[in-house]
Amino acid sequence: MKELFGGPGRVSGLLLRLGQCLFGCASIGVMISAPGFFNSTAFCYLIASMGLEVLWSLGLAILDLHALSSKKNLQNHVFLSLFVVGDWVTAILSLSAVCAAAGVTVLYARDLHSCKKPPYISCNEFQLSVALAFISWFLLAISSHVMFWLLATI
Amino acid sequence: MKELFGGPGRVSGLLLRLGQCLFGCASIGVMISAPGFFNSTAFCYLIASMGLEVLWSLGLAILDLHALSSKKNLQNHVFLSLFVVGDWVTAILSLSAVCAAAGVTVLYARDLHSCKKPPYISCNEFQLSVALAFISWFLLAISSHVMFWLLATI
Repeated sequence: MKELFGGPGRVSGLLLRLGQCLFGCASIGVMISAPGFFNSTAFCYLIASMGLEVLWSLGLAILDLHALSSKKNLQNHVFLSLFVVGDWVTAILSLSAVCAAAGVTVLYARDLHSCKKPPYISCNEFQLSVALAFISWFLLAISSHVMFWLLATI
Repeated sequence: MKELFGGPGRVSGLLLRLGQCLFGCASIGVMISAPGFFNSTAFCYLIASMGLEVLWSLGLAILDLHALSSKKNLQNHVFLSLFVVGDWVTAILSLSAVCAAAGVTVLYARDLHSCKKPPYISCNEFQLSVALAFISWFLLAISSHVMFWLLATI
């Protein structure tokens, strides 16, 4: 059993998963609080993608907690393959959603200057939500790479 | 020496690199031919990112060609580490650029309906460029995963 930072059934892994949930939820909350977010497909996609990431990470956090409390070993081939596929699908969806939302936010804020003239757009909320989603994706990216490395070296 | 599809110094690896160059160049060409692309930061970022990907893939294609003609082995730890870092940085930048451009294209085409009313926006060119860039990123993603797997198992 390899002892790698962020691996399944470790405290660092559990903290990474909890961080993903926390920042994902914060991103959804801020986006929903911004009026008019539903006018852009990219922002709706960000909410859906962060929702999926929160559910996935919460599930794995509960599994990590169970493994820690019962001292079970999660590092077998079947579990790791499942974690790798789930992590990579979720990570790629999250990154695409973050970047699409960031592209639209930059278009509003820098290219169309829609933040300073009516009808006013909630640029600050959009930017904060994208930043929180990016942190959530970054933590998920660490988990994905650790899982992939563990699967390759098991 | 592991014989993996798309590994460095193999014909499949060379074809992947050439595909990345080809689709990357096509994406840049189509985007540049669309009037008004420079009004959006996301489209300029797509051109810059595809330019970086084309340069990186062209360099590795030349290295693959050299390794094939002189029957050299590129699968040592130093080379693989370099390929992995370069591939991952380029792949993440490309995906973020593709998604940002896709987000803006969807905003124009579906949310603001800017394709059908004046001032007309070159939606077809934007969509084609994003699709070509996505194919280029997908080929790069295969290369990145193969390299990472080889580095982990070497």
